[in-house]
Amino acid sequence: MSDIKKVVLAYSGGLDTSVIAKWIAETYDCEVVTFTADLGQGEEVEPARAKAQALGIKEIYIEDLREEFVRDYVYPMFRANTVYEGEYLLGTSIARPLIAKRLIEIANETGADAIAHGATGKGNDQVRFELGAYALKPGVKVIAPWREWDLTSREKLMAYCEEHSIPVDFNKAGTKSPYSMDANLLHISYESGILEDPWAEAEEDMWRWSVSPEAAPDEATYLELEYRRGDIVAIDGKEMTPAEVLTYLNKVGGDNGVGRLDIVENRYVGMKSRGCYETPGGTIMLKAHRAIESITLDREVAHLKDGLMPKYAEVIYNGYWWSPERKMLQEMIDATQEPVNGTVRVKLYKGNVIVVGRKSDDSLFDEKIATMEEDAGAYDQKDAEGFIKLNALRLKIAAAKGRSQL
Amino acid sequence: MSDIKKVVLAYSGGLDTSVIAKWIAETYDCEVVTFTADLGQGEEVEPARAKAQALGIKEIYIEDLREEFVRDYVYPMFRANTVYEGEYLLGTSIARPLIAKRLIEIANETGADAIAHGATGKGNDQVRFELGAYALKPGVKVIAPWREWDLTSREKLMAYCEEHSIPVDFNKAGTKSPYSMDANLLHISYESGILEDPWAEAEEDMWRWSVSPEAAPDEATYLELEYRRGDIVAIDGKEMTPAEVLTYLNKVGGDNGVGRLDIVENRYVGMKSRGCYETPGGTIMLKAHRAIESITLDREVAHLKDGLMPKYAEVIYNGYWWSPERKMLQEMIDATQEPVNGTVRVKLYKGNVIVVGRKSDDSLFDEKIATMEEDAGAYDQKDAEGFIKLNALRLKIAAAKGRSQL
Amino acid sequence: MSDIKKVVLAYSGGLDTSVIAKWIAETYDCEVVTFTADLGQGEEVEPARAKAQALGIKEIYIEDLREEFVRDYVYPMFRANTVYEGEYLLGTSIARPLIAKRLIEIANETGADAIAHGATGKGNDQVRFELGAYALKPGVKVIAPWREWDLTSREKLMAYCEEHSIPVDFNKAGTKSPYSMDANLLHISYESGILEDPWAEAEEDMWRWSVSPEAAPDEATYLELEYRRGDIVAIDGKEMTPAEVLTYLNKVGGDNGVGRLDIVENRYVGMKSRGCYETPGGTIMLKAHRAIESITLDREVAHLKDGLMPKYAEVIYNGYWWSPERKMLQEMIDATQEPVNGTVRVKLYKGNVIVVGRKSDDSLFDEKIATMEEDAGAYDQKDAEGFIKLNALRLKIAAAKGRSQL
Amino acid sequence: MSDIKKVVLAYSGGLDTSVIAKWIAETYDCEVVTFTADLGQGEEVEPARAKAQALGIKEIYIEDLREEFVRDYVYPMFRANTVYEGEYLLGTSIARPLIAKRLIEIANETGADAIAHGATGKGNDQVRFELGAYALKPGVKVIAPWREWDLTSREKLMAYCEEHSIPVDFNKAGTKSPYSMDANLLHISYESGILEDPWAEAEEDMWRWSVSPEAAPDEATYLELEYRRGDIVAIDGKEMTPAEVLTYLNKVGGDNGVGRLDIVENRYVGMKSRGCYETPGGTIMLKAHRAIESITLDREVAHLKDGLMPKYAEVIYNGYWWSPERKMLQEMIDATQEPVNGTVRVKLYKGNVIVVGRKSDDSLFDEKIATMEEDAGAYDQKDAEGFIKLNALRLKIAAAKGRSQL
Repeated sequence: MSDIKKVVLAYSGGLDTSVIAKWIAETYDCEVVTFTADLGQGEEVEPARAKAQALGIKEIYIEDLREEFVRDYVYPMFRANTVYEGEYLLGTSIARPLIAKRLIEIANETGADAIAHGATGKGNDQVRFELGAYALKPGVKVIAPWREWDLTSREKLMAYCEEHSIPVDFNKAGTKSPYSMDANLLHISYESGILEDPWAEAEEDMWRWSVSPEAAPDEATYLELEYRRGDIVAIDGKEMTPAEVLTYLNKVGGDNGVGRLDIVENRYVGMKSRGCYETPGGTIMLKAHRAIESITLDREVAHLKDGLMPKYAEVIYNGYWWSPERKMLQEMIDATQEPVNGTVRVKLYKGNVIVVGRKSDDSLFDEKIATMEEDAGAYDQKDAEGFIKLNALRLKIAAAKGRSQL
Repeated sequence: MSDIKKVVLAYSGGLDTSVIAKWIAETYDCEVVTFTADLGQGEEVEPARAKAQALGIKEIYIEDLREEFVRDYVYPMFRANTVYEGEYLLGTSIARPLIAKRLIEIANETGADAIAHGATGKGNDQVRFELGAYALKPGVKVIAPWREWDLTSREKLMAYCEEHSIPVDFNKAGTKSPYSMDANLLHISYESGILEDPWAEAEEDMWRWSVSPEAAPDEATYLELEYRRGDIVAIDGKEMTPAEVLTYLNKVGGDNGVGRLDIVENRYVGMKSRGCYETPGGTIMLKAHRAIESITLDREVAHLKDGLMPKYAEVIYNGYWWSPERKMLQEMIDATQEPVNGTVRVKLYKGNVIVVGRKSDDSLFDEKIATMEEDAGAYDQKDAEGFIKLNALRLKIAAAKGRSQL
Repeated sequence: MSDIKKVVLAYSGGLDTSVIAKWIAETYDCEVVTFTADLGQGEEVEPARAKAQALGIKEIYIEDLREEFVRDYVYPMFRANTVYEGEYLLGTSIARPLIAKRLIEIANETGADAIAHGATGKGNDQVRFELGAYALKPGVKVIAPWREWDLTSREKLMAYCEEHSIPVDFNKAGTKSPYSMDANLLHISYESGILEDPWAEAEEDMWRWSVSPEAAPDEATYLELEYRRGDIVAIDGKEMTPAEVLTYLNKVGGDNGVGRLDIVENRYVGMKSRGCYETPGGTIMLKAHRAIESITLDREVAHLKDGLMPKYAEVIYNGYWWSPERKMLQEMIDATQEPVNGTVRVKLYKGNVIVVGRKSDDSLFDEKIATMEEDAGAYDQKDAEGFIKLNALRLKIAAAKGRSQL
Repeated sequence: MSDIKKVVLAYSGGLDTSVIAKWIAETYDCEVVTFTADLGQGEEVEPARAKAQALGIKEIYIEDLREEFVRDYVYPMFRANTVYEGEYLLGTSIARPLIAKRLIEIANETGADAIAHGATGKGNDQVRFELGAYALKPGVKVIAPWREWDLTSREKLMAYCEEHSIPVDFNKAGTKSPYSMDANLLHISYESGILEDPWAEAEEDMWRWSVSPEAAPDEATYLELEYRRGDIVAIDGKEMTPAEVLTYLNKVGGDNGVGRLDIVENRYVGMKSRGCYETPGGTIMLKAHRAIESITLDREVAHLKDGLMPKYAEVIYNGYWWSPERKMLQEMIDATQEPVNGTVRVKLYKGNVIVVGRKSDDSLFDEKIATMEEDAGAYDQKDAEGFIKLNALRLKIAAAKGRSQL
């Protein structure tokens, strides 16, 4: 075991990270600092304090990071209309960089020389935590117990708890969800269990944040979302902070059956994996952001953004938020958002997010030119002939030289 | 007027193209050949024969191109998960190359030296028709009356009809739709009228192919779509031709309120334009194709496709189907589809298309490796440490040299 | 003729633009303002004043724009290692936006409602001038005499001169270069004449700015180029302004036979065109900039830049300098250049530009890690195994499922 | 040590791989099969037989793969004008996939369950060998002694030789090159030694394949290279096989001082590395291939290729030749090369490769249209106005709405 003196652990307060805290202290003979963050996962974080104290932890960090999370991570990502593999809104991926950053900042504050997390050796999260940590503190050591220890089954874990007097809430353990879950203000995710068969339909009672479309109200809900520089700043005329916006959209979206997703995705570590996600607010935000951009962004700017988006999504999914390439792309994306101001009207109905109107003082939509009616000379239709002829020139030359496009 | 002897006109049988037929014959003092195609627009094409005869047309082509349309245009396009500007399924764009091709083939058969169409000088369709025509027959002449004549108002058009004894169905004219519409087996589109205000919500009675989500059945419909090399070849176990597939999906999709879209898009000729679209079958196909690819395509292949898709969509939208760049991209796309075989199960419910299962003999999903349970050595979690460390190396070096990623 | 009151003409002082000045004044019955710029083309601009006065011009602008040209156009472009179609350093393209901008600014100052230029209707320059003009002053009118008049042969032009008492320097006309040329501080270009046969080798006496490699000195010349934020700020320890840098590099490059290029390129207006170029300084700058980036830029940043460069080059070549997409790309490119500081040592010898050394306080090159010798633990070779195994995982799964990569 | 029965070793016949052969046999207690290939490295391969026999090897493979190497690897790569990081012609990278393939094929023939190579744990080559091996035989085991053993210094290696009676050619060892070298028909590379200081100029006596530009003949050499489907098939009228072509171009290129390169590159394993390369034939091929494409490829096809090339280069550099993404890109690239036929005339002079002419029956260069002289109506200059106006439309609208591009 390498020579580690103090470790900052990403600590949820749950059984697994409690075992980890104990196992690290014992195995590495070092101090453990716990860090528990409220990222909007929907569980109280304060109880983690007593649990950590019971484990003998002396330095305990518990923080509400919801505003920072949405303002500095979720919002910038949505400016790019970011979707991984055509479907996934990156709900898990986008929370990891903030945790990595705080782990390192706390390590610097407490004089710790290592960080630790409870992610497994098969997933993307270990990569995201550790790339972030190394990028922000190159000499830091990383402890990833799931890659190291032999507590590889639930039985061994329970035995370890008994041996080390770690309290197990057997009530809860007995009704343990069959799914591996992760949640934050942007989404909740489900993996494993019956989902490991991609042909099996997810069970209705798995979903926690949204009603099914079937169970949603028979009346549609309309929202007016107001954008400033690409970010939502008010809903139905009411100014809100970023976290308030997302909280509100999650509520109204989930109530209307919006935001469920069931996909097979490609992990960075090389395998395919089935995941189910609920992202009610994010689903509304993606659709509405495209709508406000549709009237305020230049065509070529929009197309360049679309062409780069898959790369940007991949960078985030793979864990490179804290990288120069992400910063470089972000500079460009943010620079495009200056005119992305205005209002989008959406209708939510039983799982659907329908854009029904968009308006903006920065609109590039020009009714005088677009109209099929007489436009009083705003556009000379005869220009189209030259436009087409020159665009066709290379094709005509090729055809005249005998090349067939058929 | 240039010296034109014979023109092949894309003729719908409607009032506008009837006027055009007469106007061309008179203005250019030349013969007119009409070409009317059934692309699944949902209107009888045979009546166009009598109308053309009434106009004095001697060479009349009326063809059912539905199978060719779906097989050689729609299907290849969907292999790329093609979406323009994040939303539009290119329903109008994809029909134009086939019409351009037949216009040129008929010109060659009939010895015509020109083609003509009824598209305006402000839209994309003129570009798509003419680029195709020039690419396939470089010396061809093109007549685009809307760019040339002075019949720029409905009144002038009516006066021309009266003067030239072109029968106007005043019954129909009186109830004329306030929208500019276009339809084929892939979609129906609506433009102009109140849609010219992007803040105005489309009226319910505008939509023709789908019921509203509200009016759709309360019971979900499940479908099993079977793919072979990226194309749907059977539904619920029943083999179907491409046109049969799309016809069926349009029906069941439309019945379930699937496929409505309301967007502002960027035209190739330079302005923004509001359009509403119904693409019931296409909406299902896009979602299902991504699902079958999710288990059968390699990750890097899928990401390359995603990165190139916006370009491919732009090529088609802008009218370059008959171009070497489209062929080049198509070669690559088609080459990726060999393993895209299997079955996708989708649930349609009140506007939602929900993928609930996917399976394939060519699946790359490996339960043994993906599982969170013991995997009997299929994957060594310790490998992840080296993977992360080398991926982090450049970031660590940069940080050690004082570069901050914050 | 549209109603034009005053025109700002890009005026070289040569015969063609003198005829144009007269022709416009006469044809449009309007005032003409001339604008003549020193962009480093190597000809005196002051004589243009007398010539313009002789034509009766009252408002005459003559400006030295060399520093602005290099600082705000050439330098930003070279930050991206910009090359069009793998070869062309965009010497003509990059000068047009500055001229367009000044034409519009002068139009605003003088109350002119139109601009005019002497570019032909077959080339790229008309596009570059006019796109810039429209982007900066949307209501401006454009006069492009070569597209409008019937002075399409040298004879007609001479007749016009005679008729309008425009002095022709017959001495000069008699020895007129057989090539169409354009020059500025970045390059001189040659087109037409025998170059219209792409198989014909350019004649030695065509080249004006560089000696042939054969005629260059037998001794190499070494230079040390110092970079700050991606731009050269000093040579051999001597601080220089941007225009001084380029002037110096042109001199020493040209003396060493550096920077000749002979290509066939694709014009934006649709045809292929043969061009020969001398870009001595630019050729050195491209090579050296890549070298300084090679030690200071992160790998992924460098690769992203490389992937976007062809698009950026196309944007500039096609005339979209004054566009939101160019600005967007520039923001990203400029953001990457912060650490691009240091010194590059190059050797010039008979046409060759050879990088022989590069150093930087911002270097990411780490001898301790790169060394083949013992590195004292800076890099753990065992990490490579996990790195490779996880990167191979998707390939192994595919192979195990029977997919062959052969 | 895992249970390995038989290993196929990439064996050069040199000291290092001889030690490896012995070390593997001893450490893993298994049989060793040696594989030695002539890839054009310029050393006899037959002597490896006696050396292997002396080590007790029973199954010895010695093969001349030069034709296969150039035909199936070098030529396809050059069809894409492939350059890594703007400079590197991938000479080492492109040889690895062929070696990996033969190692696996021989493993299959001989019933071996593992392969081994002599690449270090810091470089790219280990990745290239192993990714290829895993992709072609997913269950194969890999032995990489440099990552495993403790013979990490020359002294330990020598001691091992003495102990195991491995003959050391002390004569040769005494004059050992200070550089780490690798060679094949495409190039020879140099690393380490004084090159580990990127500011230090490489010494003249390091270079082995080319004379310096200074030492090259004072007379230029002209070549005519004939292309068929993107590949050189004849030089100066003489048909040649791929390996003959490259051998000839290396000779004449090297004689003229062509093909030296000195760069710092980014390795896949995360660090920067200084390398010097001689690629005489490849340097000529790159330049000439661009030239033949310049007259035969459509503009948009060429631009798409240029945009994808950096990705293709990265795929090869990183070791993913045997991957579905490389195949996918290759399909597209190869599809573009059908019309890439014709002849390029190049001039070699003291390090310069100068294209002086290009011709083709498939040329898209059209003198009638490109000419500045009267073109008899082949091109209507008036079309340019409409072309420009519609391309400017979005810019004009934006400007009219108050957006400034300055």
